Amino acid sequence: MHTEKERDFIHITPDIEDAVRKSNIQEGMCLVNAMHITSSVFINDHESGLLKDFSLWLEKLAPSGNYHHHATGETNADAHLKRTIMGREVIIAITKGKLDLGPWEAIFYGEFDGRRKKRVLIKIIGE
Amino acid sequence: MHTEKERDFIHITPDIEDAVRKSNIQEGMCLVNAMHITSSVFINDHESGLLKDFSLWLEKLAPSGNYHHHATGETNADAHLKRTIMGREVIIAITKGKLDLGPWEAIFYGEFDGRRKKRVLIKIIGE
Amino acid sequence: MHTEKERDFIHITPDIEDAVRKSNIQEGMCLVNAMHITSSVFINDHESGLLKDFSLWLEKLAPSGNYHHHATGETNADAHLKRTIMGREVIIAITKGKLDLGPWEAIFYGEFDGRRKKRVLIKIIGE
Repeated sequence: MHTEKERDFIHITPDIEDAVRKSNIQEGMCLVNAMHITSSVFINDHESGLLKDFSLWLEKLAPSGNYHHHATGETNADAHLKRTIMGREVIIAITKGKLDLGPWEAIFYGEFDGRRKKRVLIKIIGE
Repeated sequence: MHTEKERDFIHITPDIEDAVRKSNIQEGMCLVNAMHITSSVFINDHESGLLKDFSLWLEKLAPSGNYHHHATGETNADAHLKRTIMGREVIIAITKGKLDLGPWEAIFYGEFDGRRKKRVLIKIIGE
Repeated sequence: MHTEKERDFIHITPDIEDAVRKSNIQEGMCLVNAMHITSSVFINDHESGLLKDFSLWLEKLAPSGNYHHHATGETNADAHLKRTIMGREVIIAITKGKLDLGPWEAIFYGEFDGRRKKRVLIKIIGE
């Protein structure tokens, strides 16, 4: 996972569908989580206007600025807060070999401190 | 799941307890999630004053208003944001055939764009 | 789990690692959740400045004050809201017998209404 921009939302539903197919699990659960603490995995609508609304809203709730964390030399405390709002992980049921998603549910990776290499973990259990 | 009001909280612990009982699973996990992206499943206190506090607080953090998402014809962007604060899903441990809930934990469905038919997914795994 | 202070963050990664080791589960998932509705389990950076930032930020988003919930005699409605922002639970993949955490992921218990006894639930499933 690598974003050109500092903040970005990447649609990853097809990647997760692939992983579920390859697992051959028919009934179970699929965990998808960011492995980094300034990024998120979340489920919402795949609509560009709404993703823009999320960005603006997160900047309002958790603005860039001065934070105690920056005494360490870091400059990304707001990214830790933004990721907290959006969440670290989702769990999706697997039913009859497929992700059991609602009609508008789409899985996203949210990056709030980009331009470094990041990883998403996918873990599938069941039978 | 159908709410008369646009925004509402519905107590669903008894429904989840029923599903766990019928599954005969003794040790495992129970996933409960909203299948729609303007609603939530969350755990908190079953106390009407607190639920009112949640409503007022969500309106403050994620107010109704104009959003980029509304260029699509939708008018519910704030519902997507409110659901993000409250969360999409909960996972509850199952121990000795029962939901392993703390003394005040109650499971709720939160509706932020109601008056349409919505569904909650319950997935139980274990043995 | 008992905190001396009303609000506190306690690093619990070693406790969860112990539980996973004792379970002998090699591949699976580990659920960790607060059993109380004014506390959280979450994953973020183990850095004291950032934890201070979290405290100040939560007080801004969900301030102490008067709430409808207080008609019951309680005085901790803000703790219910703060916990909602930080989340109730995390699920961590178990791979080759270990918690599959990213390089900076650390697990915390967050207390927002302390000085009472609280419990964290750890549930491990897999094989």
